[in-house]
Amino acid sequence: MKMNRVTLITLAVEDPKRARAYYEGLGWELDSDMGKAVFYKMKGLMLGFFTLDGLAEETGKPVEELKTGAMTLAQNFGSEPEVETMFAKAVEAGATPVREPFKTDWGGYSSYVADPDGHLWEFAHNPFMTLDEDGLVA
Amino acid sequence: MKMNRVTLITLAVEDPKRARAYYEGLGWELDSDMGKAVFYKMKGLMLGFFTLDGLAEETGKPVEELKTGAMTLAQNFGSEPEVETMFAKAVEAGATPVREPFKTDWGGYSSYVADPDGHLWEFAHNPFMTLDEDGLVA
Repeated sequence: MKMNRVTLITLAVEDPKRARAYYEGLGWELDSDMGKAVFYKMKGLMLGFFTLDGLAEETGKPVEELKTGAMTLAQNFGSEPEVETMFAKAVEAGATPVREPFKTDWGGYSSYVADPDGHLWEFAHNPFMTLDEDGLVA
Repeated sequence: MKMNRVTLITLAVEDPKRARAYYEGLGWELDSDMGKAVFYKMKGLMLGFFTLDGLAEETGKPVEELKTGAMTLAQNFGSEPEVETMFAKAVEAGATPVREPFKTDWGGYSSYVADPDGHLWEFAHNPFMTLDEDGLVA
């Protein structure tokens, strides 16, 4: 599996309903609406809109630090141990640990690091997401 | 061509060399290094790291508004008129114009809008980028 991939782009929004109205007004086709988060499937990756409060809670970063315009990028993996390996590898490479690997309330396993410029990356295992052999969203 | 796509993710960085050291330390394979911008090819899209000053100049937004952690998402199109159509469509749908369509110094045609939460989207035509029938980076 190549490292050159992103499987989820998350944009913090004030109101997911407003985000839906805007993006669907542009012609985006909805994949799923979970209330505080909405998702759009692309070829090989997803674009998600998540409430700023929800993202703050999820990442453990206070809202004031996320600011309007906050985004995270995610790489998904096929198992929990791979998440832990990736998290350790990133920290070793110079990332700042933001949230140690943890069991999520949606049944997955996740972690967050900040790259050297503060960009948030999530390394996660989502048992409900199927990845193809390239590590892309199937 | 579907609307559900992103062809370029840009992360503002302090020092592209430092970004390279970090991402290549993680196993990312470089596509090209343009000095103030470096690019990584993914399946169907690119991830770019661009100096904060360069991104500020490119988007016309002052550095103080971009902040550490600034990102833009791009959708590329096959022609200049399509960029203008998309720009107008986005503004009509509620986007704030950030930079009207303009000829770039690298031979392309670009524009920027901010979505309702302030996320920057670039709508661009890059004559050097080949798009497949799905509008993905070929």
